[in-house]
Amino acid sequence: YNIVLLPGDGVGPEVTRAARDVLAVIGDFYSHDFQFSEHLIGGAAIDETGEPLPEATRAACVAADAVLLGAVGGPKWDGGKRRPEEGLLAIRKAMGLFANLRPLQVSPVLAHRSPLKKEIVEGVDLIVFRELTGGVYFGEKTRTADRATDLCEYTVPEIERVTRAAFQTARQRRGKVTSVDKANVMETSRLWREVVTRIHAEEFPEIELEHALVDSMAMHLIRKPRDYDVILTENMFGDILSDEISVLGGSIGLLPSASLGTEGPGLFEPIHGSAPDIAGQDLANPVGTILSAALLLRHSLKLEDEADSIEAAVAAVLAAGAVTADLGGALGTRAATEAVIDAIR
Amino acid sequence: YNIVLLPGDGVGPEVTRAARDVLAVIGDFYSHDFQFSEHLIGGAAIDETGEPLPEATRAACVAADAVLLGAVGGPKWDGGKRRPEEGLLAIRKAMGLFANLRPLQVSPVLAHRSPLKKEIVEGVDLIVFRELTGGVYFGEKTRTADRATDLCEYTVPEIERVTRAAFQTARQRRGKVTSVDKANVMETSRLWREVVTRIHAEEFPEIELEHALVDSMAMHLIRKPRDYDVILTENMFGDILSDEISVLGGSIGLLPSASLGTEGPGLFEPIHGSAPDIAGQDLANPVGTILSAALLLRHSLKLEDEADSIEAAVAAVLAAGAVTADLGGALGTRAATEAVIDAIR
Ligand SMILES: CC(C)[C@H](C(=O)O)[C@@H](O)C(=O)O
Ligand SMILES: CC(C)[C@H](C(=O)O)[C@@H](O)C(=O)O
Repeated sequence: YNIVLLPGDGVGPEVTRAARDVLAVIGDFYSHDFQFSEHLIGGAAIDETGEPLPEATRAACVAADAVLLGAVGGPKWDGGKRRPEEGLLAIRKAMGLFANLRPLQVSPVLAHRSPLKKEIVEGVDLIVFRELTGGVYFGEKTRTADRATDLCEYTVPEIERVTRAAFQTARQRRGKVTSVDKANVMETSRLWREVVTRIHAEEFPEIELEHALVDSMAMHLIRKPRDYDVILTENMFGDILSDEISVLGGSIGLLPSASLGTEGPGLFEPIHGSAPDIAGQDLANPVGTILSAALLLRHSLKLEDEADSIEAAVAAVLAAGAVTADLGGALGTRAATEAVIDAIR
Repeated sequence: YNIVLLPGDGVGPEVTRAARDVLAVIGDFYSHDFQFSEHLIGGAAIDETGEPLPEATRAACVAADAVLLGAVGGPKWDGGKRRPEEGLLAIRKAMGLFANLRPLQVSPVLAHRSPLKKEIVEGVDLIVFRELTGGVYFGEKTRTADRATDLCEYTVPEIERVTRAAFQTARQRRGKVTSVDKANVMETSRLWREVVTRIHAEEFPEIELEHALVDSMAMHLIRKPRDYDVILTENMFGDILSDEISVLGGSIGLLPSASLGTEGPGLFEPIHGSAPDIAGQDLANPVGTILSAALLLRHSLKLEDEADSIEAAVAAVLAAGAVTADLGGALGTRAATEAVIDAIR
């Protein structure tokens, strides 16, 4: 198995190393040959090559079995000609990663750390499907001295493929999809709602479907997050809502994500950012990246038992309180990683 | 004083009547001559005239001293040729209402009803300035069988005027503005950030300014809402974030809003929607509309004492627990309104 590592910026290198060490232990244990190769992306790539996504990185990623990314960005590159984030957007497009999955389960041992009341977040178990290659992210942009525009754009096939992915996942879960749009204002949202409604009727009539407006969804997610199973939405709304949801579980440092295409490798990354203020200090929580490695095993390498084994180890470690400072623990990044590795063994 | 009432749909008529009764009492007490005239908007207007914003309504609003709106919309008009919401968007544009203000103070007596922990929401006192006539709401929309687009568009003067309004308000408050955008992805956001930064440096250097990305802001608002004073943002982000914030205080039924132009009348409305499920049953919380009437007195009629008197009465009533079912009380819309009127007297 050929796994590309993209450490990126800020805490990215530390947490990527943590996940690689965990994957190496899994490789030994289950006798898999994981080959790792590191490539540049984001600010680190701008510093060395001038480009946020060098051609060598792009070529390595599309040829890999899976890609694990740390984080990109930081104030160091603010106002520069090229932005680190361009690298992330370009690799999503180059790999055809149209579905960004963000599972969230609120761990009972950590529910008390949530800013929400325990009785509201306890038992939350949802997954966001965010469309990742369309919308306002990739539409034409214009700029004059006096005026700027961004085009938000969706085609029927773009909506269909992420919708199918969401419904297929709902089938293996509690059988409910909530599709989020702003159909009372946006034409793309009206198309979105039509396509989701049709795919549901034609292909997944047994799944419960509800539509919600993005503004009321921003409320409901705080008031009754347990009501949701699969949440399906377009690129920008997914960006905002999935970050909102990420606070429910107590620390954003715990949360993994998977970005998948039709075929070909997936890209896996923690949902936290590059956190430049704590970079290089052995303070970052490695769990989000370690759980991203579990998703990598499950979705790209089809190694279900191996993925389960990482997730079980993480659950045991959290229950034992062997956690980093963001969760009130005393461990550093390395020690928290060792705790997970010990639990796997 | 010529005040136009736009009851609209769902619970709109009930809550508008409540606020009108309160205004009438204030008029008697302070010897002002408030003249009320009712006009059609939204679904109610579609039913009677075919148009969500009939010309008579538009003309009355622009000629008024102030406009008080209930709510528009409901499933009854789903899939129709005209949408009730069109009426709301059209009246905002016709009246030149570029700044939507949503103040939020978490009442100490209601903090325990928040889905967030008391220690997080206690003491929250912020105000959102949402740009209301630009962005994706009013840009060109296209649609073919296979594809839809929405144009998000901002000009420098559009950004300047709402920015000045936000900074002026910050001067009278705690002196801090948080401007929210998605400058790492959107060209309109990069223009937004430039203009806000320039107006700050040129005209309001004594105010503290910080920029935040909309996705991280969706998190911060839940984790540390007390950190914010004035939040300034564009139309769509303002729609989403102000609804998210609205849950902090325990009930959305409490919250007022003001929409203001450069000169001319303002439009005042509760931030809750038309709530068709409870319409006509004397269940709706009238407080959001009553507090909107207070904002009307303050901002459009410059009657500061009269506005204070309504706000003090509402605070007294909430403290006494004379509240509707959404706040765990036993009062209906009428009885809750009478309680406020008694407190004014
Ligand atoms: C860094 C940024 C461009 C990116 C996005 O908005 O997609 C990030 O917020 C994310 O969610 O992965
Ligand atoms: C009804 C709808 C068009 C409107 C908006 O999105 O502006 C509403 O959500 C609001 O916030 O006033």
